[in-house]
Amino acid sequence: MFHTAVLALLPLMPWPAQITVGQAVVPITNQFSISMQGVGASDDRVRAAVVRTFSRLSRQTGVPMFPTVVKSGGTLEIVVESRDHKGPQRLGDDERYSLEVRDGRVRLSADAPLGVLRGLETFLQSVTQNTSGMPGFSVPEFTVHDGPRYPWRGLSLDVSRHFVPTDDVKRTLDGMAAVKLNVFHWHLSDDQGFRVESKRFPRLQAYGSDGLFYTQAEIRDVVAYARARGIRVVPEFDMPGHAASWTPGYPNLATTSGPHEILRGFGITEAVLDPTKESTYRFIDGLVGEMSKLFPDEFFHIGGDEVNPKQWNQSGKIQAFMRKHHLANSEGLQAYFNGRLLKILTKHGKQMEGWDEVLNPDLPKSVVIQSWRGQESLWQAAAEGYRTLLSAGYYLDLMQPASQHYAIDPLVLPPARAERLQKQNKPIPPPPTPATERNILGGEAAMWEELATAENLDSRLWPRLAAIAERFWSPQSVTDVHSMYERLAMTNGWLEWLGLTQRSNLELMRQRLAGGERSPALDAFASALEPVKGYGRHAGRYLTSTPLNRLVDAIPPESDAARAFNNDVDAFVASDRSQPAKLIEKLSFWQAQTEAVLPLLQSRSLLNDAAPAAQTLLNVCRYGQMILRHETVDSAAASAALTQAETSESDLLVAIAPGIRRLIEAPAVSASNRQ
Amino acid sequence: MFHTAVLALLPLMPWPAQITVGQAVVPITNQFSISMQGVGASDDRVRAAVVRTFSRLSRQTGVPMFPTVVKSGGTLEIVVESRDHKGPQRLGDDERYSLEVRDGRVRLSADAPLGVLRGLETFLQSVTQNTSGMPGFSVPEFTVHDGPRYPWRGLSLDVSRHFVPTDDVKRTLDGMAAVKLNVFHWHLSDDQGFRVESKRFPRLQAYGSDGLFYTQAEIRDVVAYARARGIRVVPEFDMPGHAASWTPGYPNLATTSGPHEILRGFGITEAVLDPTKESTYRFIDGLVGEMSKLFPDEFFHIGGDEVNPKQWNQSGKIQAFMRKHHLANSEGLQAYFNGRLLKILTKHGKQMEGWDEVLNPDLPKSVVIQSWRGQESLWQAAAEGYRTLLSAGYYLDLMQPASQHYAIDPLVLPPARAERLQKQNKPIPPPPTPATERNILGGEAAMWEELATAENLDSRLWPRLAAIAERFWSPQSVTDVHSMYERLAMTNGWLEWLGLTQRSNLELMRQRLAGGERSPALDAFASALEPVKGYGRHAGRYLTSTPLNRLVDAIPPESDAARAFNNDVDAFVASDRSQPAKLIEKLSFWQAQTEAVLPLLQSRSLLNDAAPAAQTLLNVCRYGQMILRHETVDSAAASAALTQAETSESDLLVAIAPGIRRLIEAPAVSASNRQ
Repeated sequence: MFHTAVLALLPLMPWPAQITVGQAVVPITNQFSISMQGVGASDDRVRAAVVRTFSRLSRQTGVPMFPTVVKSGGTLEIVVESRDHKGPQRLGDDERYSLEVRDGRVRLSADAPLGVLRGLETFLQSVTQNTSGMPGFSVPEFTVHDGPRYPWRGLSLDVSRHFVPTDDVKRTLDGMAAVKLNVFHWHLSDDQGFRVESKRFPRLQAYGSDGLFYTQAEIRDVVAYARARGIRVVPEFDMPGHAASWTPGYPNLATTSGPHEILRGFGITEAVLDPTKESTYRFIDGLVGEMSKLFPDEFFHIGGDEVNPKQWNQSGKIQAFMRKHHLANSEGLQAYFNGRLLKILTKHGKQMEGWDEVLNPDLPKSVVIQSWRGQESLWQAAAEGYRTLLSAGYYLDLMQPASQHYAIDPLVLPPARAERLQKQNKPIPPPPTPATERNILGGEAAMWEELATAENLDSRLWPRLAAIAERFWSPQSVTDVHSMYERLAMTNGWLEWLGLTQRSNLELMRQRLAGGERSPALDAFASALEPVKGYGRHAGRYLTSTPLNRLVDAIPPESDAARAFNNDVDAFVASDRSQPAKLIEKLSFWQAQTEAVLPLLQSRSLLNDAAPAAQTLLNVCRYGQMILRHETVDSAAASAALTQAETSESDLLVAIAPGIRRLIEAPAVSASNRQ
Repeated sequence: MFHTAVLALLPLMPWPAQITVGQAVVPITNQFSISMQGVGASDDRVRAAVVRTFSRLSRQTGVPMFPTVVKSGGTLEIVVESRDHKGPQRLGDDERYSLEVRDGRVRLSADAPLGVLRGLETFLQSVTQNTSGMPGFSVPEFTVHDGPRYPWRGLSLDVSRHFVPTDDVKRTLDGMAAVKLNVFHWHLSDDQGFRVESKRFPRLQAYGSDGLFYTQAEIRDVVAYARARGIRVVPEFDMPGHAASWTPGYPNLATTSGPHEILRGFGITEAVLDPTKESTYRFIDGLVGEMSKLFPDEFFHIGGDEVNPKQWNQSGKIQAFMRKHHLANSEGLQAYFNGRLLKILTKHGKQMEGWDEVLNPDLPKSVVIQSWRGQESLWQAAAEGYRTLLSAGYYLDLMQPASQHYAIDPLVLPPARAERLQKQNKPIPPPPTPATERNILGGEAAMWEELATAENLDSRLWPRLAAIAERFWSPQSVTDVHSMYERLAMTNGWLEWLGLTQRSNLELMRQRLAGGERSPALDAFASALEPVKGYGRHAGRYLTSTPLNRLVDAIPPESDAARAFNNDVDAFVASDRSQPAKLIEKLSFWQAQTEAVLPLLQSRSLLNDAAPAAQTLLNVCRYGQMILRHETVDSAAASAALTQAETSESDLLVAIAPGIRRLIEAPAVSASNRQ
């Protein structure tokens, strides 16, 4: 099923469920045409996707193409058996398709329109430049039978901490569709901003958004845009915590008397809605009613995470309410709140979704649980009969490498986690049974925007999101990291034809740092760095108005060059260490470029704080070369330099430090090189 | 007036009429605010420009900014004396402004709203990153009194040969406004396509555009967008030649019986409208009437260039008409046609504009003449009392360096041209007198789109268009090429904050050529190349459907790296030739990168034809290094290699060849290096 030999040929991501590959190719020229058959050929989404296919092909090949839809015998023949059901796209709608390339034609068949959309993406990914013969492009002969592993494959995007304008959201949806993600989870409100126009409660956006919100027309536009690409839009209005942006306009919702302001910093506030007032529920009923019309999806996310009980505990009125209603603690009070919420959602025809914390013995099984805590809570909820989603392990704001996210599987407890449980003498939870496994709907990557803006958003999402998308779509057996990275690199480049800016915007940001013109030395220096991982950059230093225009903001989460170098070191160490030249060359390149960039780091105020990282990198390069040249190394000094390199300086990590550490610490070198 | 010392500080382009520079700076932070005073402060264009200023500042600095317009005492204080006159922007509307940066404030004052727009661009260009102190941005203290040399500063854009979608047009307008150009001359119809929706004559776009045309709503949108940026939109409907796209829908307009088809190739067709039928004028009257409403500018361009008289000469009916009306020849017939056109335009309230060829003794002086032939015809027309524009020397599709366009001045006969006249014993025309000089309104750069598409359009326009804009705006004395190139490089980078894609799209195109991932070797190889100049790439090889996705399409018209190298050679040759190391290093870099790229050139079908240029570049690099190392060089072989390098191969020129030739041919080296 999984042909490594094919991967070099076909930069498909996610990898299809079944694929066999032939020898010949089908040319894609300016004579390219599409024909359509079947009941579903008249489906709106199919027709729009077909039109987009021409312009996208033209963009990715540079070959002029007029939309040529012929009655039969097109270069691409689409057969789609049925029309769409009425109403919005639903969880579990059929996404399967087959794609067959042979005899000079491409045949795409699907039972339902959604399958055509998925298959067209596979087709577009498979169009590559001819390596010989006529200058141009073609599709290799292959047969694909494909369908998703999970029906819910999402991205949760926080637009509250930093607002993300409509165009940027649309670009993100284009990318999501390209890698077959099908749920856009729109985190629309949080302490830092309420981002949707409410006509019923206009003070929400008036006092809670600094003017940065989506009009209802824009929301409708985005929802339609997503639907056209086979993506459901699930809105999240986080409550009763994470709602400090609601109360400046509607202070009566709050537990305390105020003054109420939207949060300018980050972290968990004490602010929390008052769940004891009937007026709170009337407000929520009104808001949910209004938003339910705006967001046609059957699911509605109520957040429910990270409630700080302090204000509830300090309020005599609320404590009295809890006693009266036999609510033992704040969890009980939140469960009461959720129960009321569920009634409101049900009234408006919505199914409720919430983060881990909403789990409570009283919670009806109809609620979907999104786990940000890990497989344990995911499996527990699934075992209890809840439908669940995994987000733990898929947080893109933590700046982890694609491989780390790729290794996370909803059905596998991460080894580190299992180890920790063992050390703590806690039971390792049993994996889901075949029966409870069905309750795991899939997962969602999550992008929290405290330290990202629309400017570098794409670089925080892509290409890593494509690896996660493969985890959700492809069979569980597709786990080859080397193949993933090869295809990810191709996908990363290919996504730029959709207008994604993960590379171009970072380049532009580095150009700004350099003072207006691009600096190859700065780019080379930056290529050895990575942003600090996890929550190492937070620590209360940031406000929503803090400029995010430093070097750490202008480099990708994962350095391809550093990963390649570290891999080369592994190969070198694992072999007989006989060919150090390539490694030395790379290190001396970084050394020369970093030396060349030092004056710039001094003369550009926004780069000043990157100078220590440059010195550290220079040290690391020097020690690395000394080791490779069998020169005598002061191992204490080298170790100190590496520790420095692995410690954040201006939030920057020297990403080749792990490789150099392995050079030093791997046994074979210890005798000859150490003092 | 022109302080070279300042240029390093201030990347302004066009350079202001008067500037003095102080010592201190005014910080631009997230506290930046704008206040407005004067009658014109309520002007629509001023208010919209002020809002744009915040978002543009935010984009170019990465500093979050909310639009903070305060009553008084803003970081930027705008004083504008008067409101706009009613109706569309007019030729000669006041564009002067003063900008004073001191005492922690920026003061922008102008008599009229248009001056504010121009001054805001100067302000934005002057915001640069601090070189020391607080990380951030500031404006240096300076005082500018500025206004244009010419009132008509345009870009003529051909959207017929290849269609340019609305978004790309808008991006172009953004760039134009940034460099203070004020006329968008929209070449909307030609043999290859009629690009405007006509409701009165819908078969124009239905049969004449392949579906690629602007709806009237889009036209209105673009005109409003241009107006908001202080740019007039002058439409051109080229007739009676260059109108082969009119006759497929309306064959009765044609001189011959057809069949009529839009032109798929390029060059001058024989097709020409029939100027002898009254129905032709009724049609034009209807079309001009409709288009006059769509395009509110007072000027209307009727083309009038390159009429092939063959069909007229072969038609007995037309010959009879000419005899009847005492028209001696085809020029006379075209003059008759233009006379009728002028009446129609006058009836619809428009002033007529045409290319050189419309000049005729019978032509009323009210017509504006756009000269594509040169200063002679420009001066002649001006002397005869016509208002004139210069476009000769400003053709961006000819792939000439910025310096060449920059050297062209409406008031100066180019030396090469003067020399040619002298050789031909023709009189050198007298330059305009102060009286006739006033008839020269300015000039227009022209971008013909036979060999460009929306994909690489920006790279064909920018940054060279900024140098031409400076020629039209700045005093005639501003001619320092070194300063121009320094500021042009900064401007080129800066324009990317407006979304211009002159660099990013070419990089993406080269990534496509490389097969999906960026190839530094391909980029380095490409940096030594330039596209063939002038009309060397035409020769009937191209159709409108030909893919423009080769290496020649993916490199800028002018190689910055090659220019720098050639300049370094000049300095080396002019000095004592004692320090060849830097030149050798550059050549060996190109050599190594070109050797590295050879496998790619073989294995990517679209790059195959670039292989000969790579071999030539390798030869040139080798000979260059031999000369610099005082090795014995076979001068015949070296000369042959250079000739090859200066000859187009796959439309590619080796742009460092002139430098190497100077190395070989400059006297000092001849004795020691030649065999």
